[in-house]
Amino acid sequence: MRSSRFPEIELRPQETIDDFMGGRLKLIQSRTGYRFSIDAILLSEFVTIKKGDLVVDLGTGCGIIPLVLLLTRPIGYGFGLEIQMDLAHQAARNAVLNGFGHKMGVILGDMRHPPLAPSWADVVVCNPPYREKDSGRINPDPQRAIARHEILASTDDILDTAKRLLKAKGRLAMIYPATRLVDLMVSMRGYGFEPKRVRIIYPDLESEAKLALIEASLEGRRGLKILPPIMDQGDFSI
Amino acid sequence: MRSSRFPEIELRPQETIDDFMGGRLKLIQSRTGYRFSIDAILLSEFVTIKKGDLVVDLGTGCGIIPLVLLLTRPIGYGFGLEIQMDLAHQAARNAVLNGFGHKMGVILGDMRHPPLAPSWADVVVCNPPYREKDSGRINPDPQRAIARHEILASTDDILDTAKRLLKAKGRLAMIYPATRLVDLMVSMRGYGFEPKRVRIIYPDLESEAKLALIEASLEGRRGLKILPPIMDQGDFSI
Repeated sequence: MRSSRFPEIELRPQETIDDFMGGRLKLIQSRTGYRFSIDAILLSEFVTIKKGDLVVDLGTGCGIIPLVLLLTRPIGYGFGLEIQMDLAHQAARNAVLNGFGHKMGVILGDMRHPPLAPSWADVVVCNPPYREKDSGRINPDPQRAIARHEILASTDDILDTAKRLLKAKGRLAMIYPATRLVDLMVSMRGYGFEPKRVRIIYPDLESEAKLALIEASLEGRRGLKILPPIMDQGDFSI
Repeated sequence: MRSSRFPEIELRPQETIDDFMGGRLKLIQSRTGYRFSIDAILLSEFVTIKKGDLVVDLGTGCGIIPLVLLLTRPIGYGFGLEIQMDLAHQAARNAVLNGFGHKMGVILGDMRHPPLAPSWADVVVCNPPYREKDSGRINPDPQRAIARHEILASTDDILDTAKRLLKAKGRLAMIYPATRLVDLMVSMRGYGFEPKRVRIIYPDLESEAKLALIEASLEGRRGLKILPPIMDQGDFSI
């Protein structure tokens, strides 16, 4: 099957193409494997962006975060790093499908050893696997398993790579499980990242938070802002 | 002047006696020096208490936290440590005034070298000075200055003393400025405390948080709960 609007874009079996953001975003995704979640959107809205920023998304999946940033924020260029061939191919097609072939690059590679030069990125974003390697049931679908469990990259790997890619004072923004937030803050300090902004995501006013957004500055000064709470049920509406 | 209900309780010049909690709590406080704030109440409501717990309040001021715990929670005994003679005397009179002479002890002493045995407390609470020693204007009133700035005790002093007083798995509960929360979490880990429960206090849904409640367990397992948000304008109504 081929997309009617973009005949050069091939849609593979087991892929869907869907409209989001009132038709501004078209997205090829796996029908049964990894599909993006609202978390990626919350992270895209949260991260501090300055005009022209060069942004790297570690583990970009179908490319949702660079695409949303290109559609909604004044970034200069978005790079998506993805280790899974099928997803990297989806992200590359999604860049073209949305008219961002010239402003978005998809790099097939391992975030532990990214094929990228050091010390040039303004911003690194990452919607990481939330669960530690040996915790809970591993999803039988390998795409989903790698997205959810720290199978191919741990938090330390992410921090180490972000530190190498970022310029001095560069920013790292992540979404992270509330239960592991102390670990993340302590590890960030260990890699020279200073947490500067946190936003807690509560399902509602009466419930515990499951997730938090956190932005850290490489070699930044101490001092944390806890931004207004986000109330989000995980419903999908972009 | 003397209290009419408790003729043995002396009220000094520059002291007031006020009713709180619908008359259940009577409190002698300085008219112009340190007076308790809503933060002490929020901390008393937040801390995890098991029946019979021995609780130490570091820097008890007029004794508000042990008093509220004795009135509302099943603690076994409340100790208030206070370095300032006038405040320690207020706390001791407040214990008697509220009928807790047998369940509340006020210890005049320095929290850096508390005259208390090690490893017996179930819970340590502390509403510490929020501001670092060299930050901002120091209040000309010494009672207020010591309550607000880390003049006589730093966060490290508090963690060190709490660690010495607590039993294994004992709990430390504090209220702390949001801006310094990363420092606190990292320092807690350094002293063997694992942050287990956090509750963020927002003025309203649209504003940044100024304060957070945090409870840590001595040698506890990793894993943080971020409890539902508190919306509090700092208004006074207990």
